Amino acid sequence: MKKIPGLREACNKIQAGELTPHELLSQCCDQADLLEPSLHAFLVRGSLEDLAKEVKPGPLSGIPVGVKDIIATTQFPTTNGSPIYKGNIPKEDAPIIAKIRQLGGVIFGKTVTTEFAWRHPGPTTNPWNAEHTPGGSSSGSAASVAAGIVPLALGSQTQGSIVRPAAFCGVVGFKASFGAVTREGAHPLAGSLDHIGFFTRSVDDAALAFQLLKNDSLAEEDAIILPDLVLNEKTGIPLFATPRIAKIVTPHDHLLSAEQKQALDAAADRLRAAGAIVQELTLPTQYWDAIADMNLMMDCEAAQIHETHLKENKELLSQHIIDLADRGSKHSSEAYLAARAKQIELKQSIAAFFEQYDGFLSVPASGEAPKGLTSTGDPIFCALWSFLGMPAINLPFTKSGNGLPLGIQLIGQYQEDAKLLSIAKFAEIAFAK
Amino acid sequence: MKKIPGLREACNKIQAGELTPHELLSQCCDQADLLEPSLHAFLVRGSLEDLAKEVKPGPLSGIPVGVKDIIATTQFPTTNGSPIYKGNIPKEDAPIIAKIRQLGGVIFGKTVTTEFAWRHPGPTTNPWNAEHTPGGSSSGSAASVAAGIVPLALGSQTQGSIVRPAAFCGVVGFKASFGAVTREGAHPLAGSLDHIGFFTRSVDDAALAFQLLKNDSLAEEDAIILPDLVLNEKTGIPLFATPRIAKIVTPHDHLLSAEQKQALDAAADRLRAAGAIVQELTLPTQYWDAIADMNLMMDCEAAQIHETHLKENKELLSQHIIDLADRGSKHSSEAYLAARAKQIELKQSIAAFFEQYDGFLSVPASGEAPKGLTSTGDPIFCALWSFLGMPAINLPFTKSGNGLPLGIQLIGQYQEDAKLLSIAKFAEIAFAK
Repeated sequence: MKKIPGLREACNKIQAGELTPHELLSQCCDQADLLEPSLHAFLVRGSLEDLAKEVKPGPLSGIPVGVKDIIATTQFPTTNGSPIYKGNIPKEDAPIIAKIRQLGGVIFGKTVTTEFAWRHPGPTTNPWNAEHTPGGSSSGSAASVAAGIVPLALGSQTQGSIVRPAAFCGVVGFKASFGAVTREGAHPLAGSLDHIGFFTRSVDDAALAFQLLKNDSLAEEDAIILPDLVLNEKTGIPLFATPRIAKIVTPHDHLLSAEQKQALDAAADRLRAAGAIVQELTLPTQYWDAIADMNLMMDCEAAQIHETHLKENKELLSQHIIDLADRGSKHSSEAYLAARAKQIELKQSIAAFFEQYDGFLSVPASGEAPKGLTSTGDPIFCALWSFLGMPAINLPFTKSGNGLPLGIQLIGQYQEDAKLLSIAKFAEIAFAK
Repeated sequence: MKKIPGLREACNKIQAGELTPHELLSQCCDQADLLEPSLHAFLVRGSLEDLAKEVKPGPLSGIPVGVKDIIATTQFPTTNGSPIYKGNIPKEDAPIIAKIRQLGGVIFGKTVTTEFAWRHPGPTTNPWNAEHTPGGSSSGSAASVAAGIVPLALGSQTQGSIVRPAAFCGVVGFKASFGAVTREGAHPLAGSLDHIGFFTRSVDDAALAFQLLKNDSLAEEDAIILPDLVLNEKTGIPLFATPRIAKIVTPHDHLLSAEQKQALDAAADRLRAAGAIVQELTLPTQYWDAIADMNLMMDCEAAQIHETHLKENKELLSQHIIDLADRGSKHSSEAYLAARAKQIELKQSIAAFFEQYDGFLSVPASGEAPKGLTSTGDPIFCALWSFLGMPAINLPFTKSGNGLPLGIQLIGQYQEDAKLLSIAKFAEIAFAK
């Protein structure tokens, strides 16, 4: 596919006057015009004329950004992927949207999300094969970056909704530590689990997006402020020297396709060849068992969040949301709080493994993007890291026999986002060799 | 009562060599020996010989600290005010205890708490009249500072367990913003509401304790790190010039004793005379209605926390705890999460009032410490500020006709702890005139 420059390259070229915002936006619009008829990554996007008017000076000057349609924007309707919100224009931009615009960036359009970032899929297809799912729930954001329409798109992950579609579409998908990126103005799926994150084409691009858009206020519930990254203007995020990496063995590995399993082993070999220490690690079963706690929390929180929707607009909800809320409404507060206590306990105990390792290596999904558009795939290989608020990133690694992307997931310790990004860059270079 | 020096004075004198740690500890032991037979502030305390061995250099060198018996200490048993934990020696000091010892401070002993910081009272009496309650749940901590046994004691507040006993005993009681002081190693009453705080004899002493013992790590769930206070070595916390203060009108004001009502009005007059703007403010009823949400959350969280106690040691629990957990076990997760959503919503919306005011003025309790030791009093005038995580402080103001202390409560905006302390100092000076 014809590609616009990546985020960092585009920023640098625009700052240096080698590319004008208008030229970039024009390329992006052309690419969208070409691909959108079959891709359906965007629900709505701006015309070149309107987009050009939005350009302002700043580090993101002229950079078009795709925005998952659960994030409030005033320029475009915000539907949350639900007919309940058809034509809904929020009163205010979400703070992360205001920040992008303040830094000179341009909201290119709203990308397709599954209904309320849960399961009911939208029309987006996989850029590599339109008969396959792009993954979800951040379907359009992953597809739009993979298709070279925009250099940056915002998504959200509650279980696996950034890392998995990034893997299926063959792009970098990064969700930072829980609370490190503002979620205000984004429709919640489950407040104790939701993350906002980034789709880009490289680790350096993800690091730049994170650096510019991470939290700078503690005003929001659960917000944390992480230290600034030290990004070199020429080389980007620094390389982590000889990382010690745990290759995670999971009780779900029987779900892996032969190709995905092979890709994981090959990735470990490449990392070793580049000088990393890679050892297998089997976490105690209580970690994997806790995914049941995560599901219970998500059910409960979703039930509370969708209470009004169920009361007032049940006929406009998919069975997926009705079932989710229905499950959630059956739990006691004690069961919910026991699950929450387990989350806190495991968040603390997993720190011990990071005395021995700098990062974890895992698959992002069981294999290539499944055929068909009725399901966006299984988040089981991403869920635990979301539950524990750990930063996670997908790197494109290889292609399947069907020509679909296969990715690799790296996971870092909570709040050690800079370290994870440095390890990811090490891996990106190792994988390219 | 004969008084040892306050915290700041004691620190300064020890640092200057004008007082030795041994002299101070000896005075404290003498005072305890004299008063403890009727006061019962301590469950256990160290001998002068043992305490003297603990002295180390540091900003708190030789300072004896009373510690509420829900906070884990390795030198003394930690009973949580419950026979279930009789003789329980924790494996590790709570981080705040480790910090005190690292700064040179000495754990003087464990102070009486109500059972699990809830309602069932211990034997502590009010230092001003042994027939009256000292308040609770931090009964012994408030009484030990009021009786001049220690210059600093740690307590905890879930609804009103620092501010109320401080008012009843006539000392300064300060709880900082939610999450600003580590709670690790303290037995929880309700994790979304619990605060650790300080009993001292002056605002400057509270500011010093807070400065030295506030969080310096985000590792703990819900932790925040507040900026360092700018404390002048000679003058302490800076004075807030001409604060704008909202005198809070509550729907519970009919509970106020004539004396407490008069004290509040007199305090407002003194503040005005000192140059403050003081205006009455009636908050929308939804704020006071939310105390029902707070109670529901507390019930639910307590039910989860005491699940094992109820299963294994029900015969050792008071009816207060059994009733609390029983109520909590009946709520759905949806009801719990709706209350939690209300908490978050009101935490955000109350910020609007701090555009017009720098702080709130209120009563800390309905009047003087009630007669009798079977109840520690009603937290209704403290609960809302605890629910919203706002910093709150009690200042001794006057005495009742019965010779019991009457206090004044000042409340600040979440995370504006330095500002609240500065206003409190302004008030302390205004009240002394």
